[in-house]
Amino acid sequence: MQRTALVISAHSADFVWRAGGAIALHARRGVAVTVVCLSYGERGESAKLWRQPGMTLERVKADRRKEAENAAGKLGVADIQFYDLGDYPLHVTEEALCRLVDVYRAIHPSFVLTHSREDPYNHDHPVATDFAQHARIIAQAHGHKQGEKVLGAPPVFLFEPHQPEQCNWKPNVLLDITEVWDQKRAAIECMEGQEHLWEYYTRVALQRGAQAARNSDRKITYGEGYENVFPHVVSDLIP
Amino acid sequence: MQRTALVISAHSADFVWRAGGAIALHARRGVAVTVVCLSYGERGESAKLWRQPGMTLERVKADRRKEAENAAGKLGVADIQFYDLGDYPLHVTEEALCRLVDVYRAIHPSFVLTHSREDPYNHDHPVATDFAQHARIIAQAHGHKQGEKVLGAPPVFLFEPHQPEQCNWKPNVLLDITEVWDQKRAAIECMEGQEHLWEYYTRVALQRGAQAARNSDRKITYGEGYENVFPHVVSDLIP
Amino acid sequence: MQRTALVISAHSADFVWRAGGAIALHARRGVAVTVVCLSYGERGESAKLWRQPGMTLERVKADRRKEAENAAGKLGVADIQFYDLGDYPLHVTEEALCRLVDVYRAIHPSFVLTHSREDPYNHDHPVATDFAQHARIIAQAHGHKQGEKVLGAPPVFLFEPHQPEQCNWKPNVLLDITEVWDQKRAAIECMEGQEHLWEYYTRVALQRGAQAARNSDRKITYGEGYENVFPHVVSDLIP
Amino acid sequence: MQRTALVISAHSADFVWRAGGAIALHARRGVAVTVVCLSYGERGESAKLWRQPGMTLERVKADRRKEAENAAGKLGVADIQFYDLGDYPLHVTEEALCRLVDVYRAIHPSFVLTHSREDPYNHDHPVATDFAQHARIIAQAHGHKQGEKVLGAPPVFLFEPHQPEQCNWKPNVLLDITEVWDQKRAAIECMEGQEHLWEYYTRVALQRGAQAARNSDRKITYGEGYENVFPHVVSDLIP
Amino acid sequence: MQRTALVISAHSADFVWRAGGAIALHARRGVAVTVVCLSYGERGESAKLWRQPGMTLERVKADRRKEAENAAGKLGVADIQFYDLGDYPLHVTEEALCRLVDVYRAIHPSFVLTHSREDPYNHDHPVATDFAQHARIIAQAHGHKQGEKVLGAPPVFLFEPHQPEQCNWKPNVLLDITEVWDQKRAAIECMEGQEHLWEYYTRVALQRGAQAARNSDRKITYGEGYENVFPHVVSDLIP
Amino acid sequence: MQRTALVISAHSADFVWRAGGAIALHARRGVAVTVVCLSYGERGESAKLWRQPGMTLERVKADRRKEAENAAGKLGVADIQFYDLGDYPLHVTEEALCRLVDVYRAIHPSFVLTHSREDPYNHDHPVATDFAQHARIIAQAHGHKQGEKVLGAPPVFLFEPHQPEQCNWKPNVLLDITEVWDQKRAAIECMEGQEHLWEYYTRVALQRGAQAARNSDRKITYGEGYENVFPHVVSDLIP
Repeated sequence: MQRTALVISAHSADFVWRAGGAIALHARRGVAVTVVCLSYGERGESAKLWRQPGMTLERVKADRRKEAENAAGKLGVADIQFYDLGDYPLHVTEEALCRLVDVYRAIHPSFVLTHSREDPYNHDHPVATDFAQHARIIAQAHGHKQGEKVLGAPPVFLFEPHQPEQCNWKPNVLLDITEVWDQKRAAIECMEGQEHLWEYYTRVALQRGAQAARNSDRKITYGEGYENVFPHVVSDLIP
Repeated sequence: MQRTALVISAHSADFVWRAGGAIALHARRGVAVTVVCLSYGERGESAKLWRQPGMTLERVKADRRKEAENAAGKLGVADIQFYDLGDYPLHVTEEALCRLVDVYRAIHPSFVLTHSREDPYNHDHPVATDFAQHARIIAQAHGHKQGEKVLGAPPVFLFEPHQPEQCNWKPNVLLDITEVWDQKRAAIECMEGQEHLWEYYTRVALQRGAQAARNSDRKITYGEGYENVFPHVVSDLIP
Repeated sequence: MQRTALVISAHSADFVWRAGGAIALHARRGVAVTVVCLSYGERGESAKLWRQPGMTLERVKADRRKEAENAAGKLGVADIQFYDLGDYPLHVTEEALCRLVDVYRAIHPSFVLTHSREDPYNHDHPVATDFAQHARIIAQAHGHKQGEKVLGAPPVFLFEPHQPEQCNWKPNVLLDITEVWDQKRAAIECMEGQEHLWEYYTRVALQRGAQAARNSDRKITYGEGYENVFPHVVSDLIP
Repeated sequence: MQRTALVISAHSADFVWRAGGAIALHARRGVAVTVVCLSYGERGESAKLWRQPGMTLERVKADRRKEAENAAGKLGVADIQFYDLGDYPLHVTEEALCRLVDVYRAIHPSFVLTHSREDPYNHDHPVATDFAQHARIIAQAHGHKQGEKVLGAPPVFLFEPHQPEQCNWKPNVLLDITEVWDQKRAAIECMEGQEHLWEYYTRVALQRGAQAARNSDRKITYGEGYENVFPHVVSDLIP
Repeated sequence: MQRTALVISAHSADFVWRAGGAIALHARRGVAVTVVCLSYGERGESAKLWRQPGMTLERVKADRRKEAENAAGKLGVADIQFYDLGDYPLHVTEEALCRLVDVYRAIHPSFVLTHSREDPYNHDHPVATDFAQHARIIAQAHGHKQGEKVLGAPPVFLFEPHQPEQCNWKPNVLLDITEVWDQKRAAIECMEGQEHLWEYYTRVALQRGAQAARNSDRKITYGEGYENVFPHVVSDLIP
Repeated sequence: MQRTALVISAHSADFVWRAGGAIALHARRGVAVTVVCLSYGERGESAKLWRQPGMTLERVKADRRKEAENAAGKLGVADIQFYDLGDYPLHVTEEALCRLVDVYRAIHPSFVLTHSREDPYNHDHPVATDFAQHARIIAQAHGHKQGEKVLGAPPVFLFEPHQPEQCNWKPNVLLDITEVWDQKRAAIECMEGQEHLWEYYTRVALQRGAQAARNSDRKITYGEGYENVFPHVVSDLIP
């Protein structure tokens, strides 16, 4: 049976900056990755688009969707879904919650990626995290849509926020993404409206790569940091 | 080349209660495990022995050493070393530090096990942890005994203290020790002077096993919890 | 005047596992204990019931209610109320909040027991805690239902979650429940749908008992741990 | 251009106890300070008024408004707005959120003052903080009311809660308010319904003043403590 | 048998500012309180004395000793011991450690009072705390001076540092000292060399008293705050 | 009177990577900066030198000293002192402590820069921090070398460790070093033995610059992050 993974992104570009390496890496290894974008980031993360004359909310959303689809293509995403819940503020609803529960149960992901628990710079990110974890818990409930196969206990990894220390985010997993860096960079470059972040996130990848090399005895150039919510359950302690 | 592991135990019974499962498990898989006991726990953890008439410090130490050697045998320990630094308080010296550095460099362990960082019930445990980590860092220094092969970056796992919450110890790794539980129990029973702890640590193993099962989709009965000091460096996120 | 206590439980079994000893102990000493079950745990904590053929939501709720009433009987609960707010997710409403405020003011509890502040395994538990504390604060407001006697400042104790370290719950109160253990065990056995937890929570009681003995000079076999939200106000420091 | 500041107060007296010194000080230096009172604290913080015979909710609100306006006058507040959202519980709405966003954009404050992130004694205070920060973030979004000038990055300072340690509030900024103490005391005395707090908050000011003196080489008698949410961005490190 | 208590003070005035109320209160109730002053605070906390012409280290120590003895008299201290270990820095030795262990075993205190774990303003305070806890643990060891009755598990309360939030000290016990306030004030006034602190610590007592009143339903004017190191072991939860 | 600053560096290169910008910036503004290097980092941070044939400890120290002096020259350091206390482990002595106290009193620095409080990758860094703070406190004591002018309360800023999140270091001050970046880069390039870090720390400066820009309304390219140990004492809150 094919393995799957689930990425829950508050805005339509977050999965690229923060988890593009993990997505490309697992896709390359045959994991079918589903990305759920709760909003397009149309109000809060599209400054450059709004500077164009005559811009409308619908056009921003359409452009952002296009960019996200292009990036997903570069990364080998199997399925990308747009919930269009609005941003700044993100409006999570019980209906959307059930929809996400259905995704969990449809794909039974091996792992889940989402935002940090705190972010004083962004109100939508922690809302998305809470939403993602809430849906995961409901998907485990035998009494929710009785008869469906309930979800197991996939690990949840929180990807890196823009200003990690201020978000009290502390990486306890460093993923080597060297072999897929070119794909991540190509996906980053699909985010035409946020070109000012391209180099910023390239440097993030280099720093996490250097740290990963220093915390292991391997040669690693590019990395992504994650914070694991639940304990790792392991069969041995060999790194 | 044979893999190795290093366990640093403040008193001569700590490695049994806290890491006996990990030791037996890795020994069974061909890992040569070295255990360093910094003291015999002769003053602070031998109450039952001291209740015997005519007991002397030397006899307590000899009995404790015997118990530890017996337990090590049950667990398949490759090498057990006694530094005899005294307990309550544990006296760490620069000479002992260098001796431990030599052990790191002699075996180049794949991983290291030691105590929690804090313990309001025990002054020696955090001293042992600091000592273990200090030696690890010196073993990485090119200028220490120039010409020797320096240590890489083996992960350090902190094993479970007696009262975990009070020590601010939080397990982020749960190890399945079900297959070697009988060995751990046998080793525990070598600790004749601390029989009151046998059932206590059997329950600890059952609770960590239940938690491990609940944090995974596996059937696990007995477990050990560890807190990882450094980030895991990984090639993928599949559990 | 009779003393009272208030226990606020997200699901209808939580008060048993987590506070059964405290309830039985205080009941035995003449304290009238009111238990408020915000939901039956019908969706999320009734896996065994849902495995029965032809099960419906109403039947699960009825069975769970019966189990909870039976357990309450074993513990000597004075009053058990079911708010039936639904679980997974728990839907707290302003109407339910006012109802709980009324309970606070009707009984003026000497202390309050509820869930931990965090729980990554359970979305309803922290919601219940927030709800319980919120109602307590409103009950203290002179402008809420003017003329009623306002609530004083009863201490709030947070009972033990399923995986304490992962919930950042740290017990600073250990209650000796040895004398009522048989009652707690009998109440636990009323939870027929969750038999897999009987031994788990028996071991929890034994571990907390051992810790309580070690943190005092008393003989204690069974215990319950609590985290006090507010400072203890005391007249002396003698334990 | 005139500098401005924004103070967001859950109840109509909070800005006096907690930020009266900062308001008076900046007003004296030509900063136009806007105070937004989300509620009058009519239910939860008006015990003395409710003890008067025949008191009604409307009369309490009117009295509280009067007191707040008087205090604002003493402090030199430029603009005070009452959102009348109710208290215990405070009902924040999306409409109120947009109204506050408009204030941010109308005045472009140099800094923002609001409550601590946690407060186990008060449910409204953290709600107000979250609301204030949320509005600040939306005011920064280019897609919110396109065409308006977006907000920059004004620092947010959290003022002192009633029981600081219990709120996990830690002051990292101490403001010398000695020169405006008389004004703050006069404003405090406008709060006729809460006379029991006058001396309490005078002592708070003296303690923070003593601490400020001790953390600098200046002579300071009265102070206010703040916790800065975001890093200070500075051009030098000279105190 | 008479109850006892042990107070371990880094400098010879700390026990007065920080624990004078607890000492007087328990002395009044028949508890024999032993105070151990590790140093006189002769270098670091005697600024006023050093401003006198011709002052010498010996004279400062003599004056400080006198002040401490006078204060101890006001508080009803049963025994005050001066270890004269020097201050700034405090030099703790193994000999002094054994001497303190002997005190623990000689009096078997019902509780222990000492400093906070951290203090960025004072290097000696955390050293004293560690020393006090270390001695307590050794006093529990059966192998230390075999044959002596070992210490039980007296609770340790950390008294209030000068700047509580900066020391990450959080009071979880508030002691009503109203009935002995006059004695504490009289003892404070024995500290002639630190007159600038008299009012400061009077305000501390008033603030902690107000908080104690607010966290209970009692009338309390003066209080002292403590942080409990170990869990309270209790027989019931009634406040 | 000329302003001064004091930088305390565990190894002879730390002041360059971590505080080079602050040093150059303040030097340019007329502040006389004293750098104290506690060791040369000769054993632990000179891997490249040790790979040269025939290398000796003395030659490594001489080369490291030369590099540090060159870098200090690029940064405009007024005085650089080498205490030669050894590294891996750093041996701090009471004599060295007094020497550092003398420096504090000789220059009366406006601010102090040193390492983070924790660093699991480096045992010497936290030792240096503790040493620096300890000396600062002794320099404040009137009884230390009576008659000398005692130190005031200069702020202490902790500079960025190699892996910030793992050290629980959280920057609350971001310093704009754009105008002196060329000097810092030139100083970095003096560290010939650690060329692998040149780009790493250039990226650190760019990331902190981007964060500083985002936390202010200024254009900033390069930055340095600091964690302030003590509260800022300020006269106003305008950024």
